[in-house]
Amino acid sequence: MTRNELLQQIQTKRSYLCVGLDTDINKIPAHLRNHPDAIFEFNKAIIDATRDLCVSYKINTAFYEAYGVRGWQALEKTVHYIGNEHFKIADAKRGDIGNTSDQYAKAFFENLPFDAVTVAPYMGSDSVQPFLKYEGKWAIVLGLTSNKGAADFELQSCGDELLYEKVLKTVSQWGTPENLMFVVGATQSDSFINIRKLIPDHFLLVPGVGAQGGSLQEISEKAMNASCGLLVNVSRDIIYAGSEENFAVAARNKAINYQKEMHKYLK
Amino acid sequence: MTRNELLQQIQTKRSYLCVGLDTDINKIPAHLRNHPDAIFEFNKAIIDATRDLCVSYKINTAFYEAYGVRGWQALEKTVHYIGNEHFKIADAKRGDIGNTSDQYAKAFFENLPFDAVTVAPYMGSDSVQPFLKYEGKWAIVLGLTSNKGAADFELQSCGDELLYEKVLKTVSQWGTPENLMFVVGATQSDSFINIRKLIPDHFLLVPGVGAQGGSLQEISEKAMNASCGLLVNVSRDIIYAGSEENFAVAARNKAINYQKEMHKYLK
Repeated sequence: MTRNELLQQIQTKRSYLCVGLDTDINKIPAHLRNHPDAIFEFNKAIIDATRDLCVSYKINTAFYEAYGVRGWQALEKTVHYIGNEHFKIADAKRGDIGNTSDQYAKAFFENLPFDAVTVAPYMGSDSVQPFLKYEGKWAIVLGLTSNKGAADFELQSCGDELLYEKVLKTVSQWGTPENLMFVVGATQSDSFINIRKLIPDHFLLVPGVGAQGGSLQEISEKAMNASCGLLVNVSRDIIYAGSEENFAVAARNKAINYQKEMHKYLK
Repeated sequence: MTRNELLQQIQTKRSYLCVGLDTDINKIPAHLRNHPDAIFEFNKAIIDATRDLCVSYKINTAFYEAYGVRGWQALEKTVHYIGNEHFKIADAKRGDIGNTSDQYAKAFFENLPFDAVTVAPYMGSDSVQPFLKYEGKWAIVLGLTSNKGAADFELQSCGDELLYEKVLKTVSQWGTPENLMFVVGATQSDSFINIRKLIPDHFLLVPGVGAQGGSLQEISEKAMNASCGLLVNVSRDIIYAGSEENFAVAARNKAINYQKEMHKYLK
């Protein structure tokens, strides 16, 4: 999906919501757990209930790998079920030497129809560049993440800047706002304005709203740019909104609340 | 596998060789490519030909994910086929917020019988710790990697040290030499002595010998510690040593050369 197509989706739906499919078989409603295809059945119901309210789905690969071949099958079925209208993110935090990142890019962009993969920057340029070679596909590189551990390295001083600032500045030279986004955690509100100075044009993928406590209002007021430039991800707070047979209705209601709030903030 | 068990394997075999199963269907011998289970058949032949010469196998997950469900099936069959005598590494470069790293640990340590997973340090402590909670299992954290991109961040100054030095010092506090190793590329020979000052006791997983040009002699002379402390990985130079029907013999001959050289360096 190109940047223009994504922007059009955002304006049409008045939403920059990404629904995170971190599907954990121990957390899905009890009546589904023994279904032979439980993970996909759950995802299908969540997708059907939220499709018109979000512009993106993010599949957290860890939750699928945890079930081996069966999990990978559910992942494949899910990404195909989403279809072409939504921006499909493989939240995989990959990144390796060039010939290996080539294989990860092939996994998610050729064998599977993902639009984007999240990538860890530690190993540098040749670990990221293989994801930038595909027309209409994106690398979403970790900038400043939402977790406590961000303090260990990302927020450490490197010369006259913090490591995450160096990452944003350096990595943004490797691609363009048409094929590169950055992960910025919603819990890092003190840094939003600074981040926008460093990378005014790039889309930010923002996890951490909902279960992790980040504020949609704050990220929207401080980090939205003229063309929106935000994909705000909510996983647990939407997909586990209900634990009964009507879980999809509960998820839809949560997603409606997020979409309504986003409508207000969107220019 | 515990550290003592690994040390015993090293002394028994007089080898600290890890064979990297970066199996690419386009590079395996032509007569195998159309086999319905080509990746596993190739791996099986390589494992049978090298089992007595190496102490570890490293499965590079990217090369399996690139083939989707079929690749993941080959990965599962391969790790089970290796058995319990070898130290089995999932070279996956994973790492995410705590509840997600928990799922990756479950994938490789509970659902699959790997002994170790490679982990990227960028996201900090809670991204690594879930891999350290399993008795006899290991996190192998990226320190200074073998690729050109290592210069982009790993070798940048952060205060009075380089980023990779900060990573080695900080991460080594999160675990012990019984559950934590570090990746150090064989191409980074200028840094071996310095690295051993920072982490004298930890095992190093050393890729970069063979196709990437690193020297086994140099890493062995400069970075071996009293109990060996090295796992030197060779992938392409062994597994693609031959491209004809006798490819496994060619791989074995290469592995013999490496083992003989290691025997010389081992105390």
